[in-house]
Amino acid sequence: MPGITEDTLIEVAIVGGGIIGLSLAAGLLKHNVKVKVYEQAKSFREIGAGIAFTANAIRCMNLMNPDIVSALRSGGSVPTSTDKNDPNDYLRWIDGYNKRRKDDPSYEEMLYKLSAGYRGFEGTRRDQFLEALVKIIPEEIVELKKRLNNIEEKGPNGRLQLNFADGTSAEADAVIGCDGIKSRVRQLMLGKDNPASYPHYTHKVAYRALVPMEKAIEALGEYKATNQHNHIGPNAYLIHYPVANHTMINATGFLSDPNEWPDDKVTVEPGFRKDLENAFADWNAPVKALIQHFPETLVKWAVFDMWDYPAPYFNKGNFCLAGDAAHASSPHHGAGACVGIEDALCLCTLMSQVNDTLRGDNKSASAKKNAAICTAFEVFDSVRRTRGQWIVNSSRRLCDLVQQPEWADESKWIKAATCFEEIRDRSFKIWHYDYDGMIKETVEEYAKRQSITKGSGGGAI
Amino acid sequence: MPGITEDTLIEVAIVGGGIIGLSLAAGLLKHNVKVKVYEQAKSFREIGAGIAFTANAIRCMNLMNPDIVSALRSGGSVPTSTDKNDPNDYLRWIDGYNKRRKDDPSYEEMLYKLSAGYRGFEGTRRDQFLEALVKIIPEEIVELKKRLNNIEEKGPNGRLQLNFADGTSAEADAVIGCDGIKSRVRQLMLGKDNPASYPHYTHKVAYRALVPMEKAIEALGEYKATNQHNHIGPNAYLIHYPVANHTMINATGFLSDPNEWPDDKVTVEPGFRKDLENAFADWNAPVKALIQHFPETLVKWAVFDMWDYPAPYFNKGNFCLAGDAAHASSPHHGAGACVGIEDALCLCTLMSQVNDTLRGDNKSASAKKNAAICTAFEVFDSVRRTRGQWIVNSSRRLCDLVQQPEWADESKWIKAATCFEEIRDRSFKIWHYDYDGMIKETVEEYAKRQSITKGSGGGAI
Repeated sequence: MPGITEDTLIEVAIVGGGIIGLSLAAGLLKHNVKVKVYEQAKSFREIGAGIAFTANAIRCMNLMNPDIVSALRSGGSVPTSTDKNDPNDYLRWIDGYNKRRKDDPSYEEMLYKLSAGYRGFEGTRRDQFLEALVKIIPEEIVELKKRLNNIEEKGPNGRLQLNFADGTSAEADAVIGCDGIKSRVRQLMLGKDNPASYPHYTHKVAYRALVPMEKAIEALGEYKATNQHNHIGPNAYLIHYPVANHTMINATGFLSDPNEWPDDKVTVEPGFRKDLENAFADWNAPVKALIQHFPETLVKWAVFDMWDYPAPYFNKGNFCLAGDAAHASSPHHGAGACVGIEDALCLCTLMSQVNDTLRGDNKSASAKKNAAICTAFEVFDSVRRTRGQWIVNSSRRLCDLVQQPEWADESKWIKAATCFEEIRDRSFKIWHYDYDGMIKETVEEYAKRQSITKGSGGGAI
Repeated sequence: MPGITEDTLIEVAIVGGGIIGLSLAAGLLKHNVKVKVYEQAKSFREIGAGIAFTANAIRCMNLMNPDIVSALRSGGSVPTSTDKNDPNDYLRWIDGYNKRRKDDPSYEEMLYKLSAGYRGFEGTRRDQFLEALVKIIPEEIVELKKRLNNIEEKGPNGRLQLNFADGTSAEADAVIGCDGIKSRVRQLMLGKDNPASYPHYTHKVAYRALVPMEKAIEALGEYKATNQHNHIGPNAYLIHYPVANHTMINATGFLSDPNEWPDDKVTVEPGFRKDLENAFADWNAPVKALIQHFPETLVKWAVFDMWDYPAPYFNKGNFCLAGDAAHASSPHHGAGACVGIEDALCLCTLMSQVNDTLRGDNKSASAKKNAAICTAFEVFDSVRRTRGQWIVNSSRRLCDLVQQPEWADESKWIKAATCFEEIRDRSFKIWHYDYDGMIKETVEEYAKRQSITKGSGGGAI
């Protein structure tokens, strides 16, 4: 192709080798964008047992690079519903607290059921997905044990030098922080005195456990054990779904905590079954029975997010944030990573556009390269920030709605149950996201701003 | 048409001659449904100065009866925006509390602007619209000074007798309560011990005033005075828009009130400019300047709604509730009546369907008539209840979002401003309602249930 020279091609550094970082890397490679991934750990790893992706997010993955979807599926993803007579996935909210029946102690009223459609959700183990993702990326693209210290500008044209804790450094034209809720890139971008540089406590704690399927069926009955259910009530909820080829269920209890959390660096600590027994003491029999199958000691996880102090912008010059680094949310929608995948699709589109801009012009120089990248990241911020901040708010709100204290007051049950229309709207906003519209907006907005930049710079279009 | 006999035609009694009751009556007449309206007052009147309808609600009116739209327009409705260079209507939220500028004391930052499209809103005076509505309805259809005492069943086939406070009575096959937030029909339906039979205090009070345009321009500047603006800040907001052919603005301040309201029968009382001066003492100069043009004594209005105790159902046999009687909301969306108009369109569709059912069959009898009406009202409840309850919740939520205490804390401004994506979604859910889809669902659901009823009754379809 005329006009292609080595120096017209941009080099992107992704900080963080988690699911979003590696998916983005796979997408950039597919779109012929040079990329390197720097991960601080000595091996790829993901915290947390399970993760689910909506059908919509999987379609976004497919647009970035179909190999990502193959990795997800080879990583053992399965639909979260398994009803033989109905191929659709559902979220189900059942009354875990009220309306007991003496004739049927296992009874819990179905309050709301929402279809996510055929294969609406696919769940997998995070570590298995990550392992499969690593395999689709050439080995030389990723560097482990690279904890980012700081980033310096090299000269006037925006070339960046990333300095790592091990004394080494690397160069790039653009840095994308996919380094999660405790993002170092965000801290470098916003400054260490900005509260948005740090996650904050949501006053919810989660206790997780894996329960063997036969024990789960004993406690819940076969239908509830083998399908996703969310037992809701005042100030808490207990959610579970089958994992590991239906040999176990993954169950998580979310409790409200009025206290402060002592240390934002240690957000996981041992918890005790007794805490759950106390919190759910007044709940229905199936909930209490399930908890009896939890181990006596289990993982207690303090939920942090960026609700109180959202990042005021997702870009600064040739720095950019994506996924949890930009908008770490609580997990109550079960869709934080899906919004991160949308971010990655947007960035993939933009970096590919930047390459095209530079390829089409023989006179490309590093100043022009930097201007194009900065414009692209501005477009990313304008297209993605509102939605990223929204998912943080909406996850919090979802928890408030399902944990309404009103569930404990019979005179307020009707009021409490009016929440489901809002839950539906919020879920649909995630599940039915118009990513095609996003891509169109991204391309158009980039072209518009790029032509202005070029025009003001005197360059020919 | 074969099969039409006088007794196949249903007679509908509408209790309440407000905007929803009269619009519904006009719609039923247009669809050849016999109707009478019973209004307790000795003349038609509406409380409250202004009311606005979305373009969407006006299209619903048009489907019921185009004369309703003519009445609205002959009643002097005008778009709420008047920018000569832009034909669209907007809602605007501006910062009434923070970010003062010494060089420009009139400065208030535009936080968010949302287009409702061309003629997106049309505002009018309630009394003028009502007066015009009365003119499109034959005089013999409406009876004034009919305060409903109770309703009795006459015999086994559902014929109803409405007994009024003046000792008179009337008969009908169906009763639709359009009698507002303090609905007597709702009370008869739910029972006097049910808290949902009564409105409850939202802990917000509103102070309204009309300010001459020249004074408004003096305080706000020409642009703000001549276009809708909502000045927002911690625990209060002040909204205004031009009325009366731009000779005045209608301004309303909404304040939070932690106390209980003493008497739900007296929700309007005299208020004092001094109350507003105190509440807005720390606000920006334009807000304080505008308040100085309020009269010293003005109307203080306690905002009540059905949020705490929603009606558990909108129908019971051949009784039904529509508009505020079913889902009285606070006024923060400015769209409560629009949802009432949607109710009326649904009922209009259903009553017309019932007539068709009865017309198509020579063997119609009063038992069959009653069954068809009951089925129709069940369909109304299933199609409309979720949305009716949602508007109540959403209006409350909107107020909470714009009155966030976070506006007063500079470190929380960014968090506070993330609310607008949710405000947009909620507004669009009202403005872009798929009423065609609603009509389709209504017709299909009625046909489905009616065929089951007929089937189980042994009748031929």
